[in-house]
Amino acid sequence: MLEDADFALLRRIAARRPAVHCLTNTVVQALTANMLLAVEAIPSMSADPEEVASFTAGAGALLVNLGTLDPMRKNAIEIAIDEANRRQIPWVLDPVLVDRAPKRRDYAMRLLALKPALIRGNGAEIRALSDNPETLAVKTGAVVAETGATDIITDGALSRALGGGDPMMGRVTGIGCAGTALLAAALAASPGDRPHDVVVSGLRLFGKAGEEAAARSEGPASFAANLLDKLYQFSQTSLQERKEI
Amino acid sequence: MLEDADFALLRRIAARRPAVHCLTNTVVQALTANMLLAVEAIPSMSADPEEVASFTAGAGALLVNLGTLDPMRKNAIEIAIDEANRRQIPWVLDPVLVDRAPKRRDYAMRLLALKPALIRGNGAEIRALSDNPETLAVKTGAVVAETGATDIITDGALSRALGGGDPMMGRVTGIGCAGTALLAAALAASPGDRPHDVVVSGLRLFGKAGEEAAARSEGPASFAANLLDKLYQFSQTSLQERKEI
Amino acid sequence: MLEDADFALLRRIAARRPAVHCLTNTVVQALTANMLLAVEAIPSMSADPEEVASFTAGAGALLVNLGTLDPMRKNAIEIAIDEANRRQIPWVLDPVLVDRAPKRRDYAMRLLALKPALIRGNGAEIRALSDNPETLAVKTGAVVAETGATDIITDGALSRALGGGDPMMGRVTGIGCAGTALLAAALAASPGDRPHDVVVSGLRLFGKAGEEAAARSEGPASFAANLLDKLYQFSQTSLQERKEI
Repeated sequence: MLEDADFALLRRIAARRPAVHCLTNTVVQALTANMLLAVEAIPSMSADPEEVASFTAGAGALLVNLGTLDPMRKNAIEIAIDEANRRQIPWVLDPVLVDRAPKRRDYAMRLLALKPALIRGNGAEIRALSDNPETLAVKTGAVVAETGATDIITDGALSRALGGGDPMMGRVTGIGCAGTALLAAALAASPGDRPHDVVVSGLRLFGKAGEEAAARSEGPASFAANLLDKLYQFSQTSLQERKEI
Repeated sequence: MLEDADFALLRRIAARRPAVHCLTNTVVQALTANMLLAVEAIPSMSADPEEVASFTAGAGALLVNLGTLDPMRKNAIEIAIDEANRRQIPWVLDPVLVDRAPKRRDYAMRLLALKPALIRGNGAEIRALSDNPETLAVKTGAVVAETGATDIITDGALSRALGGGDPMMGRVTGIGCAGTALLAAALAASPGDRPHDVVVSGLRLFGKAGEEAAARSEGPASFAANLLDKLYQFSQTSLQERKEI
Repeated sequence: MLEDADFALLRRIAARRPAVHCLTNTVVQALTANMLLAVEAIPSMSADPEEVASFTAGAGALLVNLGTLDPMRKNAIEIAIDEANRRQIPWVLDPVLVDRAPKRRDYAMRLLALKPALIRGNGAEIRALSDNPETLAVKTGAVVAETGATDIITDGALSRALGGGDPMMGRVTGIGCAGTALLAAALAASPGDRPHDVVVSGLRLFGKAGEEAAARSEGPASFAANLLDKLYQFSQTSLQERKEI
């Protein structure tokens, strides 16, 4: 069940229209951009080392996704994180498949020292980085969201387990990555709120959209389309409610 | 309302099946290719400096989109434009987000000197390059299409304002970029026509498809699918009408 | 008409969940990944020369698609093929558009010497590499699948022609590329079977899904979604049949 705080989050995103600069893998770029646009956030995606600082400086949050790395992209990631940290713009790490390639894990471990605001991964990815989400949160100072059948959101002090979602969410590439971008937009729109609570709201919205999308889907492609449409509808609903108040 | 000239344009594209080589950003490549295929144009996308000249030489138009730049892609862009100009193949510039990063704007300004046939951007992008569309058209010799709630198409001498379209077109990444590819295909299929009029027809078709797609959509994902399907249907309709004549 | 062997193939894929490492072009990455996920195979896509060997080593098959090449990607391709051959992991070549750029054809010719298990291309692509599919199969030792209105599958000794499919399959970018990935998953899940027969089953499933998807589509976008949903449904059906046995 969605809560008032969840719709308030969508209203904040639609009101502030945060730019989210996404250094994300080429496989999921379109879905990620479309998920941000569905809730009225503004995506940008350049990985050119020459311009990534400009885009980051103008953004409300930075997303760093390790899904398809290469030396140029790594260079861009480091420039962007430096700029984000210099301007106190929250940055979010999605350590895609760090459990599958040792050099990628090493790279993610180095990024942890650069103070992400949020780390979002599945169980295997989070455990490749630390013993458990709580330990990773304490070590890094980040909110950690381990997503799966049950999501665990922790900032070390406060932990929350969330059910919901649908197995179909694992049958479409980039759903998790795009969800992380949604959380980046949520953090960008919520500078005064406790990040842990913002992430909980964001994941609750995401899970609910997934449930409702799956209920009317015939397979993964109609599911992915329905999920985007549903997030758009939630966002629109949140705006109508504002008018009624 | 669509005009006879618009269906004639779709018939020309389907008859000539122009190849359009697209140096476009990775976010929108799939949508761009699918929009070209929907009207029976033939997309290619290689940005390898070693082969981009071959693909350009075999194409009826070249699309240069600045959405995700990097040094290798810039190199490919310059090779491709040289080849296009050498063979008098029209090339089209989509100056994505030049208003957001100064180095990107500088790069776009340099490309203007290489004689694009068409420049298509939103208001902020066009104004980052010149005072207004007319001035930009006069300065470059290109047709300039500034798209938004009202589209302005000008070649400096003749200007046209077009309504239509739907706000949903801004809620899907790459709709504008893919529309620019459609205009490139239109120019490729219309060597004997006044480019200004070809662009007006292309944008009228695009806007009408957007309106009809939005009317039956539940959100941005179903909208994007409906837009492609609708352009395909317009193209098919244009072919049936030819048979009737 | 689908055969028992086709459903058995889908059951094997769902049971073994083979990882398929895809060095494929950025245009079709999302569709390719989603087609693998639809039948419960596991895609990965990194082209970073530093980590491509790790991903290949952990995969059941490697897909090499030449759709968007660049020097870094070529380097990754060669590392990945070496690793695949060292571990006797089957690798599959999709020689996209080798008929359109001479340097790309030269590159593909060099890769043929590295012993692909399968080469899948359209008529123009196959003929750019050899006189006909049979000759190419004999010369390389690979199964060759030339796809089109009629698919021809040959290992030099045994040849099979397959009808089916739908012209709409040519109106969506990457359908052929994603189909090649499906064949890679099929080979990964079928180490004890004759590759020729596995490829025939894979293409029959693909063609049947295409026919059924086209029958309920209004254009290329709804077709692409329906095709993925249909492959998912075939996979789910194959699992239910297992339970009944």
